[in-house]
Amino acid sequence: MRTNKNNRILLAHGGGGQLMDELIRHHILPHFRNDTLDELADSAKLYLTSKSVCFTTDSYVVKPLFFNGGDIGKLAVCGTINDLAVAGSKPVALALSLIIEDGFEFELLDKILTSISQAAKESDVNVVTGDTKTVESGAADKIFINTAGIGEKLTGVDLGFNKIAVGDKIIINGTIADHGMTIISQRQDIKFQSQLQSDCAALSGLICELLESTTGVKFMRDPTRGGLAATLNEISKASTLSIEINEADIPVKPMVQAAADMLGFDVLNIANEGKFVAIVSPESANDCLGICKKHPLGKEARIIGEVVQTRDVPVVELITKIGGRRIVQMPYGRELPRIC
Amino acid sequence: MRTNKNNRILLAHGGGGQLMDELIRHHILPHFRNDTLDELADSAKLYLTSKSVCFTTDSYVVKPLFFNGGDIGKLAVCGTINDLAVAGSKPVALALSLIIEDGFEFELLDKILTSISQAAKESDVNVVTGDTKTVESGAADKIFINTAGIGEKLTGVDLGFNKIAVGDKIIINGTIADHGMTIISQRQDIKFQSQLQSDCAALSGLICELLESTTGVKFMRDPTRGGLAATLNEISKASTLSIEINEADIPVKPMVQAAADMLGFDVLNIANEGKFVAIVSPESANDCLGICKKHPLGKEARIIGEVVQTRDVPVVELITKIGGRRIVQMPYGRELPRIC
Repeated sequence: MRTNKNNRILLAHGGGGQLMDELIRHHILPHFRNDTLDELADSAKLYLTSKSVCFTTDSYVVKPLFFNGGDIGKLAVCGTINDLAVAGSKPVALALSLIIEDGFEFELLDKILTSISQAAKESDVNVVTGDTKTVESGAADKIFINTAGIGEKLTGVDLGFNKIAVGDKIIINGTIADHGMTIISQRQDIKFQSQLQSDCAALSGLICELLESTTGVKFMRDPTRGGLAATLNEISKASTLSIEINEADIPVKPMVQAAADMLGFDVLNIANEGKFVAIVSPESANDCLGICKKHPLGKEARIIGEVVQTRDVPVVELITKIGGRRIVQMPYGRELPRIC
Repeated sequence: MRTNKNNRILLAHGGGGQLMDELIRHHILPHFRNDTLDELADSAKLYLTSKSVCFTTDSYVVKPLFFNGGDIGKLAVCGTINDLAVAGSKPVALALSLIIEDGFEFELLDKILTSISQAAKESDVNVVTGDTKTVESGAADKIFINTAGIGEKLTGVDLGFNKIAVGDKIIINGTIADHGMTIISQRQDIKFQSQLQSDCAALSGLICELLESTTGVKFMRDPTRGGLAATLNEISKASTLSIEINEADIPVKPMVQAAADMLGFDVLNIANEGKFVAIVSPESANDCLGICKKHPLGKEARIIGEVVQTRDVPVVELITKIGGRRIVQMPYGRELPRIC
């Protein structure tokens, strides 16, 4: 591999010339060999098995780039895969776009690309097209990654806010706030940070299994930025129904709760990167829970509450461990920048 | 519209809470009303007319954000549309992802979103899904935009390097180097900058017409970063055939040539944002040229050269105005950072 003497990416690597060609052919492509990408065409040519597709995009600006349980590369793949899966589709193709600051180390880029490649492989998704831009030192913070994705809609699956009804149960596939508390603890360099780990994971395997083997799932969403509180508020607002959740049933790791308490965060507002919320019919709730619990990413799945009749306006209410009630508001927005 | 007192975007607008909801609902969505986007789902649900699609992504980091003939928003739409069109597809859907620096003015964001919306409408493409991230002041340079796109393959059109043969003609749809020289002149604040104008334009209308009404087009590419020199070298390398172009036939505006001469650039290496290079069979060349010339974006189209037998290694050769010959190399990479 021909690199400059400092093994750093230069502004000139984004110029569209020989250096960029080398960056792409020697550093990027070897991680993602597949026929579509190897063509290096302006666009990837895909032959889908369905005309019904899901399409999504997400930019990743997480800081630090590497954290317990993952890195920006794994996050960029899992996050986009999860957005496709919760919409009821099987992810099939990713487009990868990098914005790299002049001076970024090739070694770190290679680590990130290795993560991307591994995460994509594990979910049987190909990176089929891409783009690389470089900006001057100081014009970006090391590296930003965008992934866009295409998923093929699962036959017979039709999820939507409009399907949600009073009595529906709310399932989450495991503990909350792991990702956000890991990031914030690493940033603040607090002493138990090593014991926290992001839940960053691609959920398409579990979600497709769930959607293909039951008919009771009505809506799904992954509670990332804004956490469970934001997701449940969005669901309540869009369905115009209220939601009740039981604090005692919401799985939280003790160390995560301790970190949140210490730093003054509400775990309900904290981002997750390997969780889904599923709204399911009451009849199918136990089946759905059973399917989750058999999967490695759903062992700690729980029914955490249900959809209830709206009295005045749709609200999300938490029944606390001591039996009190409090409104769970949509977070305002200041909590955690650059969490994903 | 509720904004903060300085009318600037805050880091908290990216937090996944109320502020982000307001940013999206009050500032972004109104520009892009369509049923798919209005669902605000994790992914857009699309019903395509074909299972054969093209898929592409591009991040835009152009500096300055606003330039004669366009801005980063128009560029982000046109660039991705062009990548889909030159691959032989009709662009149908875009995903829009914004990375915004804390403190960026809402007024400028609105201008950029207006450009995006207008450019998308003009090409009959919907922005169907999106993402917004904010980063601290100093962590990005104002705004970066990623657009990913899906195009439906045109029936019966199959472009590829492998179709290219000796004798094929090379067509360009107009003058070269307009975009790059406009950007660099504005950056250097040179006195004739106002007379230069980017060629930034969506070519899908012209390209689809060309591909649907002739059968002679074998390959197309848009000569952006690295300019005509990079594109022709890529074509020559991939097809293992040589290329000869005639300097006298390459359309360049006199003011663009003057700017390039003054600043020491070779117009062949300079980025274009509203041009395509088409490799066409000799029999169809005049028909193709005729179709181009009837279209507003192809009035100055020209046949600029042809594919020739390779002697030793595939090369691109320029026959100069005075009859000399010189090899047109792949640019090295230093020329123009942040041109798109």
